[in-house]
Amino acid sequence: MNPILHHRPFCPHSRFVRLILAERGVEADLVEARPWERQEDFLRMNPEGTAPVLELADSVAVVGADGVAAWLEDTDHGPADRRLMPEALVARIEVRRLTRWFHGKFFEEVSSLLVEEKIDKRFIPAEHGGGAPNTAALRAARANIRYHLAYIGWLAARNDWLAGAALSYADLAAAAHLSVVDYLGEVPWNEEPAARDWYARVKSRPCFRALLNDRVVGMQPSATYADLDF
Amino acid sequence: MNPILHHRPFCPHSRFVRLILAERGVEADLVEARPWERQEDFLRMNPEGTAPVLELADSVAVVGADGVAAWLEDTDHGPADRRLMPEALVARIEVRRLTRWFHGKFFEEVSSLLVEEKIDKRFIPAEHGGGAPNTAALRAARANIRYHLAYIGWLAARNDWLAGAALSYADLAAAAHLSVVDYLGEVPWNEEPAARDWYARVKSRPCFRALLNDRVVGMQPSATYADLDF
Repeated sequence: MNPILHHRPFCPHSRFVRLILAERGVEADLVEARPWERQEDFLRMNPEGTAPVLELADSVAVVGADGVAAWLEDTDHGPADRRLMPEALVARIEVRRLTRWFHGKFFEEVSSLLVEEKIDKRFIPAEHGGGAPNTAALRAARANIRYHLAYIGWLAARNDWLAGAALSYADLAAAAHLSVVDYLGEVPWNEEPAARDWYARVKSRPCFRALLNDRVVGMQPSATYADLDF
Repeated sequence: MNPILHHRPFCPHSRFVRLILAERGVEADLVEARPWERQEDFLRMNPEGTAPVLELADSVAVVGADGVAAWLEDTDHGPADRRLMPEALVARIEVRRLTRWFHGKFFEEVSSLLVEEKIDKRFIPAEHGGGAPNTAALRAARANIRYHLAYIGWLAARNDWLAGAALSYADLAAAAHLSVVDYLGEVPWNEEPAARDWYARVKSRPCFRALLNDRVVGMQPSATYADLDF
């Protein structure tokens, strides 16, 4: 039986997990999580009440983006010559630093703001905070993405991949967060050709295909979203 | 030469790193970080500008609580019979889940609120947000700690240590966050004897000694803080 991934389609951490599982050849059945419903079964698996959660056999649940990545490393899935974590100590430190950067800083400063204001608030009832986007939050996210994109461009111009010579968790973390922002048309790609070229390479990988088919109900993706030659 | 730990004495993530390094016998020289000064040297090591950062030789810097724990696992310091990460797959998943719980959820709901309102605001100039504590934030933290402490008590009553039969990263994460809250006299220990007994055992370990000597300028610790038989 496949493990079950409880995810949210436009949650960047959930997308990261889908990417790393696909890249390492782990098939998982997707179930959309609705953490705000506080379902008992879900809370028993993850008392935090957050997605993503990877449900394995025998009631074992792996919680969070970093948790699933660590589980992948422990269980040694997929081909040995295309690991997402390098062998060399200094390279591992750099992969972790950048993965943390995107899951933490980029999320707080860019992707969480845009997802909440432009997607989540459409579906949350007004009495629970839904409604029109907060323009101050949008403005902050739009200012912040410029320096993040410049940083990605700088990293991508220095190496083939963000953390070095090989594709790693860092690339898939960055791409997961960017993919959501790109859906919303909020990535100023033309300002950073090196970042755009790197993203085009990540996005062309088979692991990305399923993500590019996801749609927000009632909201078309930007013109660049599913275009592999944007 | 020892590595240098850039830390903040009442930052729970910094305290966690001090505990795990001491527990595994890694000596580090402590330097107090002042991330708000945005010093260039510090930002070169960690562009996020946050503590903790463990500075190794040759300009290699390990960023964040999870980063240092992962580095410890990679480098295999300390005695093999007292590792902080168990061998068995399911046990590892549980250690990671709980470590994440304390560094994430407990921090957001309890320790970050109390440290910011009761400590940081004393030292931050008024024009940068310093001043009197926000009573709504204090009230929230005081309500939240009750269910966190009940959870710790439930875990501690079930096993010798929070994640199972052996001391692990999960215990030291929980203890690092609690130690700061305890300094401020905000842990209702009497409500959860199992949590109190577990904490007394963690606190008696040699790795804890240095932490218990730290003082906030102009603020005495609570009566229980440094008392090993509280």
